[in-house]
Amino acid sequence: MAEPLSRSQAEQLAVALKAVADPTRLQLLSMISASESGEACVCDLTAPLGLTQPTVSHHLKILVDAGLLVRDKRGKWSWYAIVPEGLEALRRLIP
Amino acid sequence: MAEPLSRSQAEQLAVALKAVADPTRLQLLSMISASESGEACVCDLTAPLGLTQPTVSHHLKILVDAGLLVRDKRGKWSWYAIVPEGLEALRRLIP
Repeated sequence: MAEPLSRSQAEQLAVALKAVADPTRLQLLSMISASESGEACVCDLTAPLGLTQPTVSHHLKILVDAGLLVRDKRGKWSWYAIVPEGLEALRRLIP
Repeated sequence: MAEPLSRSQAEQLAVALKAVADPTRLQLLSMISASESGEACVCDLTAPLGLTQPTVSHHLKILVDAGLLVRDKRGKWSWYAIVPEGLEALRRLIP
């Protein structure tokens, strides 16, 4: 890296890294990444994690707020897909 | 990613990500990365951050413990260098 991160760049990046620095949220990202259709419903994610739907939805919201997932509400359920640019920016910005 | 992360893989990765998910530690990593010699002394790092030496040393220790920096004590000061494999593993493992 040519130039050290400024304080404000470092603060922004730390917020995004905190969103992923959690084992459940890392598992959610990797489960959605690994899904054949590239998206997953909350209904698919609760059983493998052994967590309730409100808990899974809470973690998913943090990832949506961090710009790492997009949410699409269809009928009864919300479907979540990875934002590739969001994860790529994280990888690129780690010093 | 072909296979979702297991719980234990996700827990290990979360520990390493928590070490970097802090603005001061991100600034330290980027300052050391950007230094011409590839290493930096605590004595070089305090003034640009406006922090005391004990505070900087505390953050550096967290990065050493996470396997992201190595420490070399020479005379009065400790010098810190990036462990490229450590940061590369983080980038690669982000789902």
